[in-house]
Amino acid sequence: MCELTVYLLENDREEKLMEDVATITPEGERLVLTDLLGQQQIVEARIKELRLLEHKVYLTR
Amino acid sequence: MCELTVYLLENDREEKLMEDVATITPEGERLVLTDLLGQQQIVEARIKELRLLEHKVYLTR
Repeated sequence: MCELTVYLLENDREEKLMEDVATITPEGERLVLTDLLGQQQIVEARIKELRLLEHKVYLTR
Repeated sequence: MCELTVYLLENDREEKLMEDVATITPEGERLVLTDLLGQQQIVEARIKELRLLEHKVYLTR
């Protein structure tokens, strides 16, 4: 399996936004995150880096 | 493990760009893809969708 944990980097802080993320879809200035259970979270942010070996996605504003 | 295969969607075609991708880093209008061996590919494209359960990333121009 390949779920990722999504973090928002802001003011040198790393905030965990969502675990078990199954899809990430950019829509304009936003990202739609969907987890394994189908729960969605919409964030005004962009992808800063995907570190797949660590199962982490870093977002930034 | 969580390596992804990166595809470019263009003209209704799906072109495989890179396998075993370990990191994806947006840099301006480009994406820097790095695979497990450290090989890099720089693409002028943006992320259209990450489908992690399928281990696929779709890019578009």
